[in-house]
Amino acid sequence: MQKQKKSTKGLTIEKENFSEWYSQVIEKAEITDIRNNLKGFIVIRPWGAMILENMYALYEKEMKARGHKPSFFPTLIPEKNFKKEASHVEGFSPNVFWLEKVKGEDKLALRPTSETSMYEMYSIWIRSWRDLPLKMYQRANVFRLETKATRPLIRAREFMWIEGHDCFETEKQAHKQVQEDIKITEKVLHQQFCVPSLPFKRPNWDHFPGSVYSIGSDVMMPDGKLLQQPSTHFLGQNFSKSFNIKFKNKEGKEEYVWQTCYGPAPSRMLASVIALHGDDKGLVLPFSIAPVQIVIIPIYGKDDKNKMIKESTKIKDTLEAEGIGVEIDDREKRPGEKYYEWELKGVPFRLEVGEKELKAKKLTLFTRDTGTKEKIPLASLSKIKKLGETYDKRLLTKANNFIKGKIVNCTTKAEVSKTLKEGKIARVNFCSIEKEGTKCADIVEREMIAEVRGTLANKEEKPSGKCPFCKEKAKVIAYIGKSY
Amino acid sequence: MQKQKKSTKGLTIEKENFSEWYSQVIEKAEITDIRNNLKGFIVIRPWGAMILENMYALYEKEMKARGHKPSFFPTLIPEKNFKKEASHVEGFSPNVFWLEKVKGEDKLALRPTSETSMYEMYSIWIRSWRDLPLKMYQRANVFRLETKATRPLIRAREFMWIEGHDCFETEKQAHKQVQEDIKITEKVLHQQFCVPSLPFKRPNWDHFPGSVYSIGSDVMMPDGKLLQQPSTHFLGQNFSKSFNIKFKNKEGKEEYVWQTCYGPAPSRMLASVIALHGDDKGLVLPFSIAPVQIVIIPIYGKDDKNKMIKESTKIKDTLEAEGIGVEIDDREKRPGEKYYEWELKGVPFRLEVGEKELKAKKLTLFTRDTGTKEKIPLASLSKIKKLGETYDKRLLTKANNFIKGKIVNCTTKAEVSKTLKEGKIARVNFCSIEKEGTKCADIVEREMIAEVRGTLANKEEKPSGKCPFCKEKAKVIAYIGKSY
Repeated sequence: MQKQKKSTKGLTIEKENFSEWYSQVIEKAEITDIRNNLKGFIVIRPWGAMILENMYALYEKEMKARGHKPSFFPTLIPEKNFKKEASHVEGFSPNVFWLEKVKGEDKLALRPTSETSMYEMYSIWIRSWRDLPLKMYQRANVFRLETKATRPLIRAREFMWIEGHDCFETEKQAHKQVQEDIKITEKVLHQQFCVPSLPFKRPNWDHFPGSVYSIGSDVMMPDGKLLQQPSTHFLGQNFSKSFNIKFKNKEGKEEYVWQTCYGPAPSRMLASVIALHGDDKGLVLPFSIAPVQIVIIPIYGKDDKNKMIKESTKIKDTLEAEGIGVEIDDREKRPGEKYYEWELKGVPFRLEVGEKELKAKKLTLFTRDTGTKEKIPLASLSKIKKLGETYDKRLLTKANNFIKGKIVNCTTKAEVSKTLKEGKIARVNFCSIEKEGTKCADIVEREMIAEVRGTLANKEEKPSGKCPFCKEKAKVIAYIGKSY
Repeated sequence: MQKQKKSTKGLTIEKENFSEWYSQVIEKAEITDIRNNLKGFIVIRPWGAMILENMYALYEKEMKARGHKPSFFPTLIPEKNFKKEASHVEGFSPNVFWLEKVKGEDKLALRPTSETSMYEMYSIWIRSWRDLPLKMYQRANVFRLETKATRPLIRAREFMWIEGHDCFETEKQAHKQVQEDIKITEKVLHQQFCVPSLPFKRPNWDHFPGSVYSIGSDVMMPDGKLLQQPSTHFLGQNFSKSFNIKFKNKEGKEEYVWQTCYGPAPSRMLASVIALHGDDKGLVLPFSIAPVQIVIIPIYGKDDKNKMIKESTKIKDTLEAEGIGVEIDDREKRPGEKYYEWELKGVPFRLEVGEKELKAKKLTLFTRDTGTKEKIPLASLSKIKKLGETYDKRLLTKANNFIKGKIVNCTTKAEVSKTLKEGKIARVNFCSIEKEGTKCADIVEREMIAEVRGTLANKEEKPSGKCPFCKEKAKVIAYIGKSY
């Protein structure tokens, strides 16, 4: 392979040209390197890996806090398991990577998702109401033979996942879990990754294969297209009947369990973090997941290098004692060069430590998202943590405002069309999302190259008019958008 | 699948019958469940998953402390990459899982190890001596089509791995890294997981495919067989030449990098932890990796249940503030039943909290490895952390004594044979491990069903006699043992 020369300069493309900007920023900020040339599979470089580790840690913490226990299931699934739930296998089959058969053994698939692997064991483990609820998850990479164009982190053939799989005694408990899953998304994706999403109950023609209904949380990307983030599925008793997952209830009678599953993908969530917060200078990482939360740049000449590094180390120790992630950049480069590199990588704060600053006992603090500099007294460095929280709130507010400005109430087909062309979401009175497919959905898909994404799942919204497509009385308020 | 009934009682097999005991303890302590019936692939249940998470965390922390940066590479490797290093592909080919070819695309393999995936990128990233050393690792599952009998955690077709891949300017630096890898093994596997191992430089006929030499760290299992744990490989310039990983040195001249790789497998290390420390009652987990380090059992009647749970919660809070992992077991079961369950699961300490104990301000503390009970004053609960450290040291000392007692100096073939039959390791003057294979090694393999494991890699040992097999002057002191 020929060595390609990389520019050492920062971004050359503005975020306005989102698609090109995204391709450039993930490479220049060293999240990935697409030169591995394997369709749908990417290399995650250390900076990206450290961010993803932080994302996994926060997500798994919340999964555990909500009663889920970790587990690990095989990456490979025997064909006979995979085929047990009819609509599941039908939905996933076109996108399964199969292994070459080993003589005398079952044919194996690379897991596209793990229902058919986990539920086989659930049927053994669950025997009584005392075993319920059973709430488990695994951190797992999954594989889907994506035939469409792939995009790093956004649409991939292998992605980094968490999958939660829960079983309950009653239908009601399972519906409740779906709502709790939406809350987990809000707690982590919204509050900690600063990425708001809209939880849509998907139309009946677009739910997870094998589920009764699905909630997909959509994130609006800067190009006006929606990217599905964590989705949660009410499986009813579809799988428990196929996999024979029964329990004896309190009356001693056998029943099938009620199930839900939930699938946040840290690798894809990272795409939204990058897309929503980045700017013309590079990444803007939330304080909560930045591998380096504050970088210290010692400013020195030939004579005071050691002194400045020593003073910087003291400051680092103070900050680390507060649980803050710190790095001192003492490489042989000009400060200006270091500044733009760390700005490109999205580090929230930069502290400049020079002779003058130390004398005045006030350091220069640069904040990445606002691009502002201020003086911070040496004595109040512990404020950084607080400033980090404010920083994250600011990112979330900005993202919230962005998405709010993108939702447009539409009453006519022309308005919907115009809204979509502007890269926005049309909020409409809509006939129904309960059928197996509708002419109205067809119009949206074929004429507007968009989709009925569903109805809000965490809020009841009452329709009050007619469907702009079929003119029938609307049963729901639906959201229409373009998507990845 | 028929539901198999599981005994709720503890172990029924003594550790003396190691093989059966191991199979029983990993099931009953809920590390795994082999009923998934997929040769070489296992399900890790929550208790096992939480232990593995702790093992990963400690190992990755040490990898980072030694300058390695995390990364993630694709699980699949194109055939053309895989075939670049001739002896590597020859060594691994029989054990590769291949995917069914997707039309128009390269044939893909499930990674058995990631040299051929990572080094392709290294050849792009490394351009100058300034880019060196490059030290990276990934947490990754790897796959080997094992045709021999598999055993849960010990010999598997999928295992949970960490792989470190380092590049250096000079040969000397790479040799030094091999020694540092041995130190990482000592720091984590020995000191933290309480599992001592012997780092053997493998004979020339038994090194990693593609390497110049390999160090395999062997752990003596209770059945007298050695289990290879982290191995570290000096790759020389074999891969850098195949993958064209060159750098410009300080004089501006192009050179190939010198490489090493290192592969600790937490899943396999867990097997050694279980095997070395467990006893007739179940697991004995090191304090450092126990998901629950101390379990509190409130002892109550009908009247004082709430009070005892409340008091237990206070104690839990105190202990958690010290960073200790605590669980209160307030299930509706008799205390005795709870005791044996937590002993089976290997929790280091148990605290019994009852009315009498609270009045006397002294609680009963049970210690898992010694099986002793003592009174601990409420006021000195913070001592637990210290006790945990002592507990781990005790486990390590015991394991060290066990392995020491297993090494026997032998001077004749008969002595070697007898030693191996007793489940011990023969330490012998040996002709040579540098050739491509020897008659002496053949004798060991064919007649004794054992292996020359190599020479100690972290200590120079001088031979002083003749090889017991060929009677030639010995060049090394070698260790011979049976192995998994």
